Amino acid sequence: MFGLLVSSGGSHSEFILITLVVFYVAAKSFAAVCERLGVPGIVGELLAGILLGNLHLVIPELHGWRMTVLSSEFFTVASELGVIFLLFLVGLETSLTDMRRVGTNALCVATIGVITPFTLGYLSGFVLPGLDLSTLEKIFLGATLTATSVGITAKVLSDSRAIRSVEGQTILGAAVIDDILGLMILAVVSGLASGEALSAGVLGVILLKVVVFFVGAFIAGRLILHRLIRIPAKWHGSALMLTTALFVMFFMAWAAAKLGLAPIVGAFMAGLLMDEEYFHGYREAAETKLEHLMGPITALFLPLFFVIMGLQIDLQAVSSMPIVIATAILTFVAVIGKIVSGLGLPRKKGDRLTVGYGMIPRGEVGLVFAAVGLHTKAITPAFYGVTVLVVVLTTVISPVLLRRRLHRRLSA
Amino acid sequence: MFGLLVSSGGSHSEFILITLVVFYVAAKSFAAVCERLGVPGIVGELLAGILLGNLHLVIPELHGWRMTVLSSEFFTVASELGVIFLLFLVGLETSLTDMRRVGTNALCVATIGVITPFTLGYLSGFVLPGLDLSTLEKIFLGATLTATSVGITAKVLSDSRAIRSVEGQTILGAAVIDDILGLMILAVVSGLASGEALSAGVLGVILLKVVVFFVGAFIAGRLILHRLIRIPAKWHGSALMLTTALFVMFFMAWAAAKLGLAPIVGAFMAGLLMDEEYFHGYREAAETKLEHLMGPITALFLPLFFVIMGLQIDLQAVSSMPIVIATAILTFVAVIGKIVSGLGLPRKKGDRLTVGYGMIPRGEVGLVFAAVGLHTKAITPAFYGVTVLVVVLTTVISPVLLRRRLHRRLSA
Repeated sequence: MFGLLVSSGGSHSEFILITLVVFYVAAKSFAAVCERLGVPGIVGELLAGILLGNLHLVIPELHGWRMTVLSSEFFTVASELGVIFLLFLVGLETSLTDMRRVGTNALCVATIGVITPFTLGYLSGFVLPGLDLSTLEKIFLGATLTATSVGITAKVLSDSRAIRSVEGQTILGAAVIDDILGLMILAVVSGLASGEALSAGVLGVILLKVVVFFVGAFIAGRLILHRLIRIPAKWHGSALMLTTALFVMFFMAWAAAKLGLAPIVGAFMAGLLMDEEYFHGYREAAETKLEHLMGPITALFLPLFFVIMGLQIDLQAVSSMPIVIATAILTFVAVIGKIVSGLGLPRKKGDRLTVGYGMIPRGEVGLVFAAVGLHTKAITPAFYGVTVLVVVLTTVISPVLLRRRLHRRLSA
Repeated sequence: MFGLLVSSGGSHSEFILITLVVFYVAAKSFAAVCERLGVPGIVGELLAGILLGNLHLVIPELHGWRMTVLSSEFFTVASELGVIFLLFLVGLETSLTDMRRVGTNALCVATIGVITPFTLGYLSGFVLPGLDLSTLEKIFLGATLTATSVGITAKVLSDSRAIRSVEGQTILGAAVIDDILGLMILAVVSGLASGEALSAGVLGVILLKVVVFFVGAFIAGRLILHRLIRIPAKWHGSALMLTTALFVMFFMAWAAAKLGLAPIVGAFMAGLLMDEEYFHGYREAAETKLEHLMGPITALFLPLFFVIMGLQIDLQAVSSMPIVIATAILTFVAVIGKIVSGLGLPRKKGDRLTVGYGMIPRGEVGLVFAAVGLHTKAITPAFYGVTVLVVVLTTVISPVLLRRRLHRRLSA
């Protein structure tokens, strides 16, 4: 198969098409193997990327192909759009009403689960041997460890029929609150990364931007979004429901970028503020929901994001002793930091350890932190490798611990 | 709104996001206006592109933005993928069994409807005043006029409840056969455009490639495609049905490109050879069809193709007298060439003029010819403008003539 990539000459279309073929085959077959082993599919897609990105160590002819992909505007933008679509979907699936219901337990778990890993991650930046980290790198370190990935835990809980339990609902609620807190931290951190030296004044300006964006988006969302969305509903023409939603999403992603925040922060807010009922006037609304229309689009773009995340990891740069030690320490810190969050649930209400184990996986948002860090040169390529590996390891550890715990409690 | 584009500085993400916002708003609002006037939406999307591409005549600051879009690898590839997805969908919706049923009438109409406009187009290349066309340009001229666009006529027929009539079925059958003939011609023409000087030997090699590709794809399709498609059905994981279909599509598009044919020829063949029943083993197959999964993807990509097609038209280059005369002559030839195709239907069986009027619109495949011609530098930018304008004019003329004819026959 790889001979296809090596062959020189050929048009740019050929390069794009065969690269897409190889990406989808590698991502989906690795994902299938991982899922058979009980490990989430995205780990497989990352591993596929890591393999493809380091094959040139064995087949030197692939070095040029890897560099062409990484410097390609198409693949860069497509993988960025992949995360934008993903976060929009996460926003759509997040209901503010539901969050209010799960209430204070979830909020406590989420808050502990953000503060502890951030603090531990930041502090471990001082003790990692052989690495001399800047303050910004230490902050990134902490920030990457904050956001829980909902998808993986939800899968394990529903497989064990524990998703409607107190623990299950608390984890899901906390993971969603987590995502929002994580995106606020990302907004601050990406502001810092693009800006000047860290100072109280700079931090203040960024915090102000974050508040202005979130509050402004909320007010605009309540006041004009439903009116705006209803305009094209009266037009003729097909697929206007999807196009209108994408228009709002792209616009808010652009507005966030314009303010110096990450575009995904805007995409998430767009999803959060959109209500299913705003689309009642559309022809398509009778047959389908916006989430379903977004499905094929994320299926197309998201594997590109994960594969390209993996492709950027240089195994030679990551295989030094300090990096291996750093990965081990940070994974330990990442796991402990989230297990502690189970304390947010009162002992009488449910099993704290189940909640703690369920909060361990990082996943997409953690990867986004790493990507933003690398892109803005806030973290080094070697350190980028560490953060991605930590995300992978937490994602592999959590289902193992959680399944064992659920099994023990069910048979007790 | 355009102030957003003009503002200097800002990141590349900002440029991509705001361009997407402007493209979707312009495309969809122009399409809505056109559809209200009874003109197909794609004409509106093209016009939106023409407007955006020539706004710099009024607002000079937009010149840089237009050039950045046209030289952007992302927008170039995304609009190419748009047509690839479209032709894949056309292939999926084309059933070889249905085509056999509509039978010889449709085949006669299609054959006359390809030969006449091609010959007339080629010959008019000799008489167009003030333009000195090469043989390749004359061939492109003929080829662009061959392929009928199914969508527009189908809309008018179903609006007038005439889609199940003999005329309706003949038009739809002929349009599909047309598409296949058109793509074969495109395969030959794009081979010529990328190759050396025109000679019997060169033409022979290209025809051989076309035959090898079509026959090879058919045999592979019958022998191994259903087995290949059934492999991932046994895996865990979501969206594998769509990903598998896209894998086959990208692979065949790549194989076509590798042979020196247009990638869309491969994408069309992939759709044609895929049978709904090959996907029976997939989890998603119970709830949805491949065509529905492709819907959101084409909704996302296709407007980019039409807008960028329009964006490339330089009104200053098109506004010379010879170009206006050429457009008028070619539109006349395009209309007559297709009206004649109605003769393929025996007089006793149905109304020949209804069939002829229904075959007039060109649309997507005609635009693809123009795009390939411009891309391979087989036609000049001014001449590219002519072909796009001819496509637009046929698309506007046909519904008007067809509606009047159907109305007269219904009231007679």
